[in-house]
Formats: sequence, structure tokens, C-alpha cells
Amino acid sequence: MTSYFLKASQFPLASVCLQLRYSSGRGSGSRSMSFQKNSNPSPKLQFQLERVPHMNDFFPNVPSHPNPLIHNRHFHALMNGFFVHDTDMVARQVAIDTSDPTSQTHAYFPRAGPRERVIYKPEDVKAAIVTCGGLCPGMNAVIRELVIGLWYQYGVRDVQGIQAGYRGFYSMEWVPLSPKVVDHWHKIGGTVLGTSRGGFDLEKIISSIEKSCCNVIFIIGGDGTLRGALKIMDEVTRKGLRVTIACIPKTVDNDVGIIDRSFGFQTAVEAAQAAINAAHVEAESTPNGVGLVKLMGRYSGHIALDATLSSRDVDCCLIPEVPFFLHGEGGLLEFMEQRLKANGHAVIVMAEGAGQDLIPREGENSIDDSGNVANLDIGPWLSKQLKQWWKEKYPDRLFTVKYIDPTYMVRAIPSNATDTIYCTLLAHSTIHGAMAGYTGFVGGVVNGNYCYIPLDQVAQAKHFVNVNDHTWAWVRSVSNQPDFIKPALHATTIDG
Amino acid sequence: MTSYFLKASQFPLASVCLQLRYSSGRGSGSRSMSFQKNSNPSPKLQFQLERVPHMNDFFPNVPSHPNPLIHNRHFHALMNGFFVHDTDMVARQVAIDTSDPTSQTHAYFPRAGPRERVIYKPEDVKAAIVTCGGLCPGMNAVIRELVIGLWYQYGVRDVQGIQAGYRGFYSMEWVPLSPKVVDHWHKIGGTVLGTSRGGFDLEKIISSIEKSCCNVIFIIGGDGTLRGALKIMDEVTRKGLRVTIACIPKTVDNDVGIIDRSFGFQTAVEAAQAAINAAHVEAESTPNGVGLVKLMGRYSGHIALDATLSSRDVDCCLIPEVPFFLHGEGGLLEFMEQRLKANGHAVIVMAEGAGQDLIPREGENSIDDSGNVANLDIGPWLSKQLKQWWKEKYPDRLFTVKYIDPTYMVRAIPSNATDTIYCTLLAHSTIHGAMAGYTGFVGGVVNGNYCYIPLDQVAQAKHFVNVNDHTWAWVRSVSNQPDFIKPALHATTIDG
Amino acid sequence: MTSYFLKASQFPLASVCLQLRYSSGRGSGSRSMSFQKNSNPSPKLQFQLERVPHMNDFFPNVPSHPNPLIHNRHFHALMNGFFVHDTDMVARQVAIDTSDPTSQTHAYFPRAGPRERVIYKPEDVKAAIVTCGGLCPGMNAVIRELVIGLWYQYGVRDVQGIQAGYRGFYSMEWVPLSPKVVDHWHKIGGTVLGTSRGGFDLEKIISSIEKSCCNVIFIIGGDGTLRGALKIMDEVTRKGLRVTIACIPKTVDNDVGIIDRSFGFQTAVEAAQAAINAAHVEAESTPNGVGLVKLMGRYSGHIALDATLSSRDVDCCLIPEVPFFLHGEGGLLEFMEQRLKANGHAVIVMAEGAGQDLIPREGENSIDDSGNVANLDIGPWLSKQLKQWWKEKYPDRLFTVKYIDPTYMVRAIPSNATDTIYCTLLAHSTIHGAMAGYTGFVGGVVNGNYCYIPLDQVAQAKHFVNVNDHTWAWVRSVSNQPDFIKPALHATTIDG
Amino acid sequence: MTSYFLKASQFPLASVCLQLRYSSGRGSGSRSMSFQKNSNPSPKLQFQLERVPHMNDFFPNVPSHPNPLIHNRHFHALMNGFFVHDTDMVARQVAIDTSDPTSQTHAYFPRAGPRERVIYKPEDVKAAIVTCGGLCPGMNAVIRELVIGLWYQYGVRDVQGIQAGYRGFYSMEWVPLSPKVVDHWHKIGGTVLGTSRGGFDLEKIISSIEKSCCNVIFIIGGDGTLRGALKIMDEVTRKGLRVTIACIPKTVDNDVGIIDRSFGFQTAVEAAQAAINAAHVEAESTPNGVGLVKLMGRYSGHIALDATLSSRDVDCCLIPEVPFFLHGEGGLLEFMEQRLKANGHAVIVMAEGAGQDLIPREGENSIDDSGNVANLDIGPWLSKQLKQWWKEKYPDRLFTVKYIDPTYMVRAIPSNATDTIYCTLLAHSTIHGAMAGYTGFVGGVVNGNYCYIPLDQVAQAKHFVNVNDHTWAWVRSVSNQPDFIKPALHATTIDG
Repeated sequence: MTSYFLKASQFPLASVCLQLRYSSGRGSGSRSMSFQKNSNPSPKLQFQLERVPHMNDFFPNVPSHPNPLIHNRHFHALMNGFFVHDTDMVARQVAIDTSDPTSQTHAYFPRAGPRERVIYKPEDVKAAIVTCGGLCPGMNAVIRELVIGLWYQYGVRDVQGIQAGYRGFYSMEWVPLSPKVVDHWHKIGGTVLGTSRGGFDLEKIISSIEKSCCNVIFIIGGDGTLRGALKIMDEVTRKGLRVTIACIPKTVDNDVGIIDRSFGFQTAVEAAQAAINAAHVEAESTPNGVGLVKLMGRYSGHIALDATLSSRDVDCCLIPEVPFFLHGEGGLLEFMEQRLKANGHAVIVMAEGAGQDLIPREGENSIDDSGNVANLDIGPWLSKQLKQWWKEKYPDRLFTVKYIDPTYMVRAIPSNATDTIYCTLLAHSTIHGAMAGYTGFVGGVVNGNYCYIPLDQVAQAKHFVNVNDHTWAWVRSVSNQPDFIKPALHATTIDG
Repeated sequence: MTSYFLKASQFPLASVCLQLRYSSGRGSGSRSMSFQKNSNPSPKLQFQLERVPHMNDFFPNVPSHPNPLIHNRHFHALMNGFFVHDTDMVARQVAIDTSDPTSQTHAYFPRAGPRERVIYKPEDVKAAIVTCGGLCPGMNAVIRELVIGLWYQYGVRDVQGIQAGYRGFYSMEWVPLSPKVVDHWHKIGGTVLGTSRGGFDLEKIISSIEKSCCNVIFIIGGDGTLRGALKIMDEVTRKGLRVTIACIPKTVDNDVGIIDRSFGFQTAVEAAQAAINAAHVEAESTPNGVGLVKLMGRYSGHIALDATLSSRDVDCCLIPEVPFFLHGEGGLLEFMEQRLKANGHAVIVMAEGAGQDLIPREGENSIDDSGNVANLDIGPWLSKQLKQWWKEKYPDRLFTVKYIDPTYMVRAIPSNATDTIYCTLLAHSTIHGAMAGYTGFVGGVVNGNYCYIPLDQVAQAKHFVNVNDHTWAWVRSVSNQPDFIKPALHATTIDG
Repeated sequence: MTSYFLKASQFPLASVCLQLRYSSGRGSGSRSMSFQKNSNPSPKLQFQLERVPHMNDFFPNVPSHPNPLIHNRHFHALMNGFFVHDTDMVARQVAIDTSDPTSQTHAYFPRAGPRERVIYKPEDVKAAIVTCGGLCPGMNAVIRELVIGLWYQYGVRDVQGIQAGYRGFYSMEWVPLSPKVVDHWHKIGGTVLGTSRGGFDLEKIISSIEKSCCNVIFIIGGDGTLRGALKIMDEVTRKGLRVTIACIPKTVDNDVGIIDRSFGFQTAVEAAQAAINAAHVEAESTPNGVGLVKLMGRYSGHIALDATLSSRDVDCCLIPEVPFFLHGEGGLLEFMEQRLKANGHAVIVMAEGAGQDLIPREGENSIDDSGNVANLDIGPWLSKQLKQWWKEKYPDRLFTVKYIDPTYMVRAIPSNATDTIYCTLLAHSTIHGAMAGYTGFVGGVVNGNYCYIPLDQVAQAKHFVNVNDHTWAWVRSVSNQPDFIKPALHATTIDG
Repeated sequence: MTSYFLKASQFPLASVCLQLRYSSGRGSGSRSMSFQKNSNPSPKLQFQLERVPHMNDFFPNVPSHPNPLIHNRHFHALMNGFFVHDTDMVARQVAIDTSDPTSQTHAYFPRAGPRERVIYKPEDVKAAIVTCGGLCPGMNAVIRELVIGLWYQYGVRDVQGIQAGYRGFYSMEWVPLSPKVVDHWHKIGGTVLGTSRGGFDLEKIISSIEKSCCNVIFIIGGDGTLRGALKIMDEVTRKGLRVTIACIPKTVDNDVGIIDRSFGFQTAVEAAQAAINAAHVEAESTPNGVGLVKLMGRYSGHIALDATLSSRDVDCCLIPEVPFFLHGEGGLLEFMEQRLKANGHAVIVMAEGAGQDLIPREGENSIDDSGNVANLDIGPWLSKQLKQWWKEKYPDRLFTVKYIDPTYMVRAIPSNATDTIYCTLLAHSTIHGAMAGYTGFVGGVVNGNYCYIPLDQVAQAKHFVNVNDHTWAWVRSVSNQPDFIKPALHATTIDG
């Protein structure tokens, strides 16, 4: 057993069960066994210390060295409190219902930060950084800080950039990175390394890693990318390669689970304001003007939701998590009519994944390049529906719909200050974790604290807008938005 | 015993002590007594449910009514999960050291949100809103949302704006507010209501409140303002006036304790980037160029710290929490010389409260208008010191210092999206609390969750940069910033 | 002697003809006759003083009064040079070919500015302001300044806002405007008065003007609107109504002739940068990435051209004035292939009116609501063409096209400083002209000088990109953009 | 006949004198003689073609070559109208008083643009670029475009960057520049080459130029820099060195004469809005709040003036060209009192050179480093005066002054779109001129047309705000700003 997890008996809550949830396949049973000792027969409040894989799990007797940070000329790492210990943990759940605490599981993740001892000497590290998937504000900030942190804090001098996503491992030249090269990257949108979808060829990637003798790999990408990283992790383990896999989740949709939010999200919400403002101005400047804005969010409506809450100029926010319908009592059109009557204009913000069940799907485009059911474009469809509806109902009255799709202008920009600081600390957290020996993990923020989360958990967890929660309810109360309950259902609800 | 707190016996952690910390003077001993039942003789892990005053504490048998939100035409509040219960609590502490959990106290605050029953009928509410102290991004957003929430969610029609801070209660006309009036305020910097320092005349304020029959007062201000609010709360209690006091902390310095951060802080950090960028460009564009930026922060360096971390162009960040010195080994000038030699330029960001011990204090201006020891202006002082030092050391070499004080440009702007959403939810949270009967409280965010915190706690708590914590250490490692340890001390530290 | 300077004898200025061009129908022949005296029998260099209609032309003996500006308390208008005289003129043509000056006509317009005498007393003015057509940055700034100038400079107190364009004259309530009402309008995009297309019913408008006793009408709109204004001017003249018609051209496309540029244009060019930046980042961040941006410009490519020149990240700029073709030697696709090979990415900016001859026109949508041939959407069409071409040519290579249409985000924003100052001086110029008795005119800038231009001239004049001029050639040289000359033509050109 | 149009007979154009003004010392008498032929004994309207020095003037029989632009693969320069001829001229004066045209001189400058023949072969050019003086938005854009234009249009491959101003010629390494190096520079503020004041050592500079064999020098700087360039030009001429001197005026103050405006000026005016907005918000948010903003402008108030006109929130604009006084009737304080009474707040914008006669000058700092009379800081002085005045007059009333000096934040930023396009065309114009053989010239815009102006003229000409002109009068009428006329004078004026 590694020393950095509490033995259950050390945890002086007599009535607490320490239970390690550690997905099979990621670590052998024996390693996780020791955490499953349940010293108490009647567990009530469940504490669960999340197990993050460590190189020690796979390579017994990995030697460790003092953290090079202690030799830094300018600051003195020996002061009290500088190093984080493996017993420092961060709670996943902070809001509890004290009327029934037994129903809740309290998971804890290891806190991120520099450890006193690391498993790599500077001169032994050959690091690689890859970015995959669509663009997101802050990607360059993350890359820059990985290079800066490895170079200045840990003395690593061999950092390679993989170009254009996973395919870059085997089909393109690797780009040597240094502080000088990346110095101004955080002020550029997109990713200077390049990115792409697909191109995940496990065999070629592993072969390329072996050939290059690369031993610390930083992978920045969304859930698909993280699942790829898991496969690399498995294969590396299977082959007995001593390679650290460290990930940073990237999704402008903010739909990765467990972590508070993904980097770039705040920037995207801020940038979306310009589109909503324009839609609002267009709508207000003409009789019966409607402004439509489509924002990112295939499966979750976080950007649409937050952009709506921060704009204060939106009448209705449509997200994938909440079904709606157009015609009839309680429908969107009825609501729009009321708003237009009251204010003379209205603004709708919709996530791209909203209303997929309403849009007629034609045969040809039902499957996209990745083999998934293709997303249908709600923007033009809803725009057309609104115009048809009005023309039939009020053929003589002015009515205009102005539709804006600001997607690329929202995501292909540099991170704002809030996100840059986040990217910075994410990157440094992840470096500390990798140097300390963690592997198969992501660096993330949980309840405001940087910590390490098992990669397999993050790769699975989806983060939806909780429509039963207060935030969504508040949005609706704040904007007086309908909940699109059909009359029959509605009656039931009222009765209930 | 009020119904909204758990009885200790209901809390099925046998080894847990429930202890109510409730400052004397705010509530009577009898009310808090019931929470001090300690069912377990050997408490180890301390749970503490924070007691927020409630009108019921002062006026027994305050009648309650169904929340008017259930009658909202558009959305249907009856769905499961909409209303928040008094047993929903939010943890204050989320990062724990599992090696010694007994050393930690776990405080919980009531979660914010609409309650099923409220103590005010819409037509009985006469609300007033006042803003005090210096400007901060988002003040108008908070005011706007208080008006919007009271009006649309709770049907309140009598909302008054108090002009120019506390003095406005008795010396200026009150301004009737409505959704139409405040509609675009969130896009304006400052506070349309006006603000000022001082003017706190308890007697006149109370008299004005009594005369106006105002019964729900929203006070937005910093720690001084909150202490004033406490006095109003005490006096109102003493006089038996049925007046709700609800506060929202405002401090661009982010130096109010307990809450995650104050509103407007993220906007200020973002806005500060323009000043740092300008300083960096000026410094880089000339040989031995030094850029100096002074940011807000009399007692805490949060803005300077976050602005530094998000900029990535800063060589040194000076904050009140960390002493520094100029001359000699390990001093600022030595550090600057190294940086200038290495890069040809350097950027220093300083909080206004940094280095107060170094600046010679002349008799005349030692006391400011409020009777406090006046802050000395570090900007011009440090600028002069740098020039003198260089002129003496390298009289023939070019050297320029460009000093920027962007204070008003950082604080007199509208909130960005991140802060507007925060202001919105803060305001709505606070309304829900006031309508539900809480009083003497502030609405705030703790670990990402909106909750209610006793006013007296927030009025006392200061939020400093924890220089023993990882964030500060990381800043320093990230920027390779010195820790200004004098050689002797240094040696000791190393030995230690 | 160097060859590039004219010998004095080559410059045949001895014989100059002053000729007034004044369109028949706007003023009577007798008035213009007197300007056609040709004192020289062999005119070579033609000077032409443009005749702007004046109320005196239609109502002999219109009384005049001293300009109320002389009574302004704060500044003293009597100083030398304050008032502009009718003999102050502004040249339309400033770049001349001195090798053949006889070929050129030199037109001069009356300079704008306050006149010593005005034809309206403050209390006699009933002014109305109307905005028509699509949105453009600065509309609110113009409206605001018309109100401010009339109110503070000329003491006018009856200023009415017409809502939603021409139809607002007869179908909506007029809105009384005052400095207090319009105070912050210049910081809002769009037009608070509202606007719309169509709704021009001459009879109803005239009837409404008569009924309202409105006597000074400010009309802000594009060429269609100005042609409507001409009709109003004619009808008002025909009916002998003493009504001043003063116009300010509005077109975000910058396609109104004679004037240097239309207000809002600089703001739009600035705003377009965000879209081009995003397209560039998207293109650069992926292998063979193409960014497409569609900008406004149905008949002229000014926005596309200026946005291209100021961005420096654009590979190709397509405008209506320059035909292009896709396939074959010298075509766009060949050019794109070269750029992708050279740089790995490319950015195309296109005006919405470019390539209309290439896009297949389907029967149904050939006529738009105004009866014109409908514009076809080049964006999706070109995007599809590019994808098809690549797929056929390189089925195995990555290729992405990211298409951005930022139209509303470019036009529905407030004017930037450059445009606000322009709107301000335009509005004040126009007021001075109207008060001095000019009518049937527009206020505009010609070669940097504010002046008055006959309405009929501006309503006809189109401003295209001069593709034979240096600017366009420079764009192309600067971006190395092709001129899409088909091989055969090309050969001819070379031969010629 | 209306009185405001000239009769043809009043326009004495029959007799025109062509006169070349060419300052002695720059070209030999013989060259200019030929232009002084006066074919008419009674000159009335004076035409003057400005003589720009040409290498032919100094080196007879300089060979010329076809412009390499004709070989450009992508566009075809042979089309009609592409090349500019030496007979293409641009008028300096466009607004004339037709009542007395004889009083006016009409100067014409050669139009900028590519010539059919150039004097340099690509492989023979060794170009150098230097930036001097203070920062200004757009410097990097100019540098970038010089490199781009030389490289891609003229095939030049040897372009050197001189670091840190004139001193860089002899004391620092030269930096080879290429399109790859400068690609993103236009998005960076300041100058990547570096700049400094002083360091002008003619002998060392000439010696360095000789040693390097550099033959085309681009100098970017303000009036001091241009006077230095003149000295280099003279010395180069004296020594018979075949070196082209081409300049681009740089002054954020916009105080260089002849040209319409200097690059970066529009960006600075735009950036100043943030400071004025902040001052306005601070002033409005508190009783009797005064916002003070100091903007650049030692000798001319252009930035203050334009920033005032575009902001619409300024009560008073103080510029060097207009004296003011504080106390007594008609003074600033009286005006402020009126404004505070009327509105409760006020905003003052002042150019740094305003009120220099009012500020007490203390012995020590009367001479600055350059030997000039030092500028005194009006900001803190006026701030103090205002506070003292109020304290004496209304000791019991609130009064706050918020002073903002945004200088570096206004100038150390990248150029906006309007300025970037300007910098681009300026740089390309200047390249075309240098390649065509012009020397001792600046590229500039006159009445909207790019042209070449003799260096000596620009180095002398100052551009002040014309306080007798309409623009200033309008500012004052627009803001109702006082003209600070002392009562006695005032009476006289009224009487006159």
C-alpha cells in the first residue's frame, strides 16, 4: 500500500466507511483492496477517498528525489505550508441536506500542489503536449504554462509539442517548445500547436511514444479525447512502459463532469454577450423584432444558461435539458406572442442541442462524420418557424427575425483574465501531479480547490444543467421564462 | 427551538458535536442553547451549523404565507426540488488534512434560495436599497436585480432608492425604483443611486426608517458599511421595529472574509490587465524599461495577485501581506537588476497597501479624514527610489520608469459577464432570504454555493492573501519572484 | 529639370468657366441661370459651385434673425471667424492630374457651420427626426446630437421623434425628445426611435406633417430613404408648405456617393476585425483550415476592403466590383490551393454582393420583398463549393471550412470614438444648415470638410470601390491577392 | 440671385501664378529656378507645386528599372490606372473663401503610389528601419508593413531593424527583419524594435550607415526625430552618399503639420474614452463629484479636443491653445460651480500642456533633460486648487475630485482598424516613394490622399488647434464650455 492514502483505521470517525471507488481495469484488485477495509459495520455518512493512480502502482520501487523547487534561487520552498501532502484532500460535495445526511456520499480528491518528493529528475523528463478537438479559449495559455512550469520550476528542457491532435503523434514533426517560443501564446486564441478531430490510431501513437522515448504526456481535450487518453494509459500499462499520462479537460460547452467548470467557459460566456447585445439591439430597433442567438452546447446548455443570466436582456433560453414545443397553450409561440405584445420585441438564446426532437430529420444527413446522429441546426429552423407562424397569424404586421450564430467568435479568442489564471493554475497543478508520480489523472478544480481526479471518472462523467436545481429555476423566475408544460401535464402538476 | 435547525439527535454521526457559534448580542442565549446539546462525550470532528437570525427570533408568531412564486404564470414552482429547505446547508471548509481531521471545524451555512413560506405579503413590503463606500463594478447590477426580483418574483411594488449612501436616508429624497427605471443600469459603471463615505448618523437613519415605514432594507457596502448595518440591526431590535436588514458585501479589494470573493473582483482583475499590458509594452519598448502598476488593495493584495497570475507579464508582485526591502542582498533592487540584465525590462505590480513600513511618513498627512492612519502612496515613492538607485549605480545608462495608476478605470466600469451573473444570483438569493424571514444576514457564495451568513461574522472577517498557502507560493514560483528574505533569515530558513 | 513637375505654361488655368450644375426640378431655371455666365469663351478648367436649395428660393422674403448663438452665456460667438459665410466653399476634387487639368471639373460645396442670420426663431420651430432602413453604428449619436444642438444652441424646445421609420409619421405616436431623454443614447447601438424598411406612403406622410405643423424634418437613411425624402421635398414644394427637409446619409456599406464616408463605417470595420480574427484563429489551428467571413456590402465592397486592409490576416478579398471564378487557371480554387500549400491555412473575406453571377439562382427566391432581384447568400454557397472541391481532389486529407457571418454584431453596436465625433459634427452641421434656411440638402463631409450637398445629388450618387484606383491595387499587392484574370484575357492584357 | 454664390466675374482665376516653394538648402537653386517661370505678370490665385527631392537631383543619370510589381504572379499591374505618375498631385487646401480667392495659395504635393520605373534593383537594396521618441499606437504596424512591402512587392531581402532609436545605429546590434519575424507585430503595442529619446550622434550615425552599406533608411519619429533626419539628409548629401532618407511622422499628439493627422491618433482618442467614462462614472456616483482626466498634448490639444467631442460627457476641455483662469467672473471655478449646481457633477478633460502659465514654477525643476522648459503637471495642481476652493467656500458640503492620468494606457496599445489601415497605406506609400527615387520626404495623407511631402516642411510645421476655426467653436457650443474671457475683455468683445 502506498503511503499517501489514509488507512481506514487512521481516520478517527468511528462511524465512517472508507470506500475506494476505483474502476476495475485501471488498477489491480490488490491495490484497491486495502482501502476497502470497512472498519465499521454500520456506515452512515460515507466518506470516499478517491484513488488516483500512481506510478508506484505499476512500478514498485520507483525512486523519488527531492523536489527541485527547493533549490529555486529566488523563493524558498522550505517554508511551512509550501508542500502539499497526500493526506490533503478536497471534498466533492459541499451542499448537504442535513435532514438526511445518510443519503449522501462524501467523495474526496487529493489536493493538487507541489510534493516534497518527485519521481523524475529534470534531465530524465521528455515531455509531450497535445491538444485535440475543437477550439476553446485558453488552450494556448495551458500549453504555455505547461512549458513554463516544466522549464522553470522543474528544470525540464525537453518539451515537445504534438501538432494537430492525436494524428500529430505519428504523422507530423514534433515541435520543440521553450519559454521563449511560447512566451506570448496566452494572448492568442486557438492553439498554436494545432488540433483536429479524430486521428486516434492507438498502435501508431504508442509506437511513436516508444520511439521518441517520451515519458510524460500532457493531453488536453474533451471527453472523446480523454477516452482516447484512457486507452493510451491502458496500453502503456499493458506494455509496461513507464509513461505518465496527465490530462486537462477542455470543453467550451462546460459539459465535463466532477470539475467546477472547464477552462475557457467564462471567456465564452463573456464573448457571447456581444451576440446577445446585437440581437437585443436589432430586436428593439424595429417593431415586433425578434433576436435569435445560437450558442454552443450539444448536450448541455451551460453557455446558453450563463449567457442568459449575465445578459439580463433575454426573454427565453432553450437548452437540451428542457424539452419545449411550439404550438398551442404553454408553447413557445404563445409565450413569444405575449412578450411581443408586452415589449414590442423579444430575444431567444438557444443551445445548439436544444429542440433536436422537433426538427424534421431528413435521411441524408442523419449520421455525421464520427458516426453519431448528426446535430440538426436549430437556428435557421426556428427562425423559419417563427416567420411562418407570424405570417399566418398577422400577415399585415411587421415582423423581423435576426439570427446570429457567433460560435467561432466565442471560442476562437484568447482567454480572459479569469480563465487565464485558471489555465495557469490548472497547468501548474497538473505538472506537480505528474512530477510527483500521479498518472492517469486530470488536474481540475472541485469546489474552488485544485485537485487530482482519476482520468476514468472524468472521461465518463457528464455535466448537465440540473433542471431540478435552483439555478435553472432561478433563471426561469428571473426571466419569467415558461417551462413549456403542456396543459394536461400542467394541470397534473398543479393538482400534485 | 426553531424548526429550521437540526436537533443534534437527528444528526446521525455519533461522534459529532453540533455547536452553534452565535455571537452574543445578536440572539438570546436560550435560542442557541438548544444546539449545544452534545450527544457524544468524545467529539472529534466538529460540525457547526451557523445560526442566521430570523424575524421569528424577535417577533414570536410572525405569520407566514405561501411563496408567491407558486402563482407565477409561466413557470411552475411546485416541481420537486424548487424550494430550498432550512436543512439545506453549505460547508465552509472543503479542503481538509485527512492526517488530522480532528483539528478542523466544519461550519455550515444555510443554503440560499426560495422558501416555501415567506413572512411578507407583497403589498406589505416597503423596501429600500442603499449603496455606500467606494465604487465597485456590479453595484448597479445588484441594485437592478433587487428591484427586478422584488417586483416580478414577489410582487413588491414599493422599492425606494436611497441616494448617496447612509446620509441619503435622512438628507436626500428617496427615489422610487421600478423595472422600467432600472432596466439598463447593469450596463453602467458605478452606482446610479450614488454613494459616499461617512454620513452614518444612527439616530437620523432610524428616525427616517420609522417615518417612512420602510420594513426591508438592503444595504450594499464594505466592512465599514456592514458594521454600520449591524448598528442599525441592533437599534432596530432594541426598539422592537419589525425591519429586515439584508446586506450584500461590496469591496473591490476582495478583502471581506468567509465569502469566496466579492462581486466586481473578477471585472477589476480583468480591467487591470490593460494597465499591466501598457506597463509591459512601455517597459519592453525601451532599454532598461521598468513598468510600475499600482492596483487597489489597502490591506490585502488579492487584485494585485490575481492580476499578476492572469497577466503572465509581471516580474514582481508586491502586496501588503508580504514585507519587502529595497537595498542589499535579497532585496527588490538586486532582483530588479537581475531581471533587467536578463530581459532588458521588468514589470512590477503593487497593491496600494504594500511597503507602507518603508515609505517615510511626514507629520502632516498621517491621519486621513476617517481618523485612520493615512495610506502612503507607494507608486511615486517606488518610482523615485528606482530612479535614484539607477542614477547612482549606472549614471550613463538609459533607464526609464513608467508608472500607471489605473484605479478609477478599474473600478468605475460595469461588471463583466462573470460578475453580472454573480450579482444577479446574489441579489436574488438575498431577496429570497429576506422574504423568508432571515434578517441581520448577508447573501454570499461559499465554495460556489449561495448561502446566508450572519452579518456579524462577515462584518468582522477579513480576507487576506494567505502567504503560507499554495496560491501565493505558486505565484512566486510562476514568476520566479523573490521572497525578500534577508540573508540572515534566509540562512536560518535553509538550516531549518 | 526633372520630368515630374509641370511647367507653368502647361497649366492652362488662364481660362476658367464657372458653371453651376443644378438639377432641374429642384430649383427654378432663373435662379441657376445667373451662374451660367461664362466669362470666358474657351473654358478649360471647370469650376462649379454646387447650388444647395434655400427657403428663399421658394418663399421670397423669408425674414431672417440674428443667430441665437450670439446670446450664449458661456462662449462668445462674435469672435472673428466664428460664423461661416455662404462664400466659404469646399472642393470636391483634390487629387488632380496636372498633365491634363482641362479634363477635370472642380466642384465646390457650401461649407457647413453656423451662419450669422437664421430663418427660424426658436419658438417657431417644430422639429421631427426619423430614422429609416437597416441599423448602422451611430444612429443614436446622430439623433442625440440633433436634439442637443437644437435645444442648447438654438433654443428649440419642440423636437419630436418619429418611430419605426417613415410609417411612424402616420401610424405611431410621436415621441417628444429632450436632452434629458436622449442623454445616454450615443452609448446604445441601433436606434431608440426604431426603424423599418418600406412604409413610405407619401400622401399620409405629407398629411401628417401638415396636421402636426412640423416645419423642420431631419431624415436619416440610405439611398432609398433619401429618394423618399426627395419626394417629400417635391410634394412640400408643390403644396407650398414651408417645411425644411434636411438629411443625413446612413449606410453601413459606405456606398453613398460624394461624401468621404458614411457614419458608422469605421466602427463596422473595427468590429469586423473580431470576426476575421476568429476566422484566422480557426483556420490556423487546424491543418488545411479555411476561414470564411461574409461582411456587408450588396453593391460595394468597402467594408470587406477596409477590413481586409486593417486586418493583415486575410488572403483574399472578394467584392462585388471584381468578378471572380472558381475553377481553372487563375481561379479562386487554384489560388487557395497555393495558399494552403504555402501556409497551411487561408482566410477569405467576402462582401455579401460578391459572386452573385456564380451562384445558381432558383426560381422561388429570385425577387425579394422590395421587388428587387434577391441577393443570394454567398457564404454557405462558397463554403460548400470549397468542401466539394477539396473532397474530390484530396479525399484523404483533412480540410475544414469555418464560416462566420457577423453582420448584426458589426452593425448593431454603438459608434466608436471616431464615428461619434463624426456623428456629432454631422448633426450640428445639419442643424446649422437647416436653421440658416438651406433645405433639400444633406450634411456631409467632403475631403475632410463638413459641407452641404444638394439632396438630389446624394440620392443618386453611388460609391463603388474604384478597382482602377490605387487603393484596390494596393490591397491586392499587399495581400498578393489574385485578380482572377482568365488565361486568355490575361495574355491579352499582357500584350496590351 | 441669392447672395451666397459667387458671380463668375468675381472669381479672378484668369491670372494664376505657378510658383515652386522649395526651401533653400535642400535643393540647389538651379533645380527650382525652372519652376519659377511666371507666365503671368499679375498673379492672383497662387498655385504651388511642392518640390520633393529626388535622387536625380543629387546624382545625375541615376539609372532606372521597371517596377518589379509588373512581374507579380497574382495580380497584373499593367492595367490602366495602376501606376501613379509624377503629374498626379494632391491639393493641400480644399476649403476656400470664394469672396477673396486671391488671398489664398494653393499648394499641391505629388501623389503617392507605385511608379512605373524605380531606381533600385531588389538585390541592391539594404534597408534600415528606426523608431524614435515616445510610444504611439501603430508603430509596429508601420514597421511590419515596411518589411512586408519591401519583401513581397519589391523583392528586397535585406531589411535591418535599428534598436532603441537613433543610438541603435551605432551602439546596438542590427536586427534582420523578414515577413516571418514581423508577422504578428501589428497586434502588439509599442515598438518591438525599441525606441528612446536622444542618442542622436550625427557622426556616429553616418559612420555606421557608411560601414553597413545601408542605402534606404526609414525613420519613424516626431518633430525632433525629423529634424535629426534632416541633418542626416544634409550630411549624406554633403558626403555624396547615395542613401535614400524616407520618413513617416509619428506623434500621438497629432501636432505635426501639413498632414491630416498622425497615425495612432484615432486609437488614442478611442482609448481615452475609457478614462473619460471612468471619470464620468466616478463624478456621477457621488454628490458634487468632479472627474479630471489629463490627456497627452504638450503644445496642442487635439487629443483632448477629439476625446471631448466623441465622449459627450465632458463639461470642460482645457487645451494649451486657449488660456484660462481660475478665480473670478468668467473663470473656471465659477463655471464649475454652475455645472455642479445644475448637474451635481462635472468632468474636465485637460491636455497636459494646458494652464502652464498658471502653475507656480519652482526653481529646481524648470529645465528638463532635453534642456527645454519642463512641463508642469496640471493634473495634481488643478485637483488641489479645486479642493481648496471648495473647502473654503463650502466647508460642510461633500466634494470629491477623482483624477485620472491614462497616458500610457492610451499610447502603449496596438492600433485600431482605422489606424492599422492608415499605417499600412502610409508604409506602402513611403516604400513606393523611396523605390521611385524620392528622398528627404515623408509619406503622409493630405485631405485624404496619400502623397509625398518635403521633409523640411514637415519637420518645421506645427499643427495647433485653430481656435478661430469652427471646430473649436463647435466644441464649445456643443459642451456649452466657457471661453474664459475676463469681464473687461468680455465687455469689449460684446461692444465690438
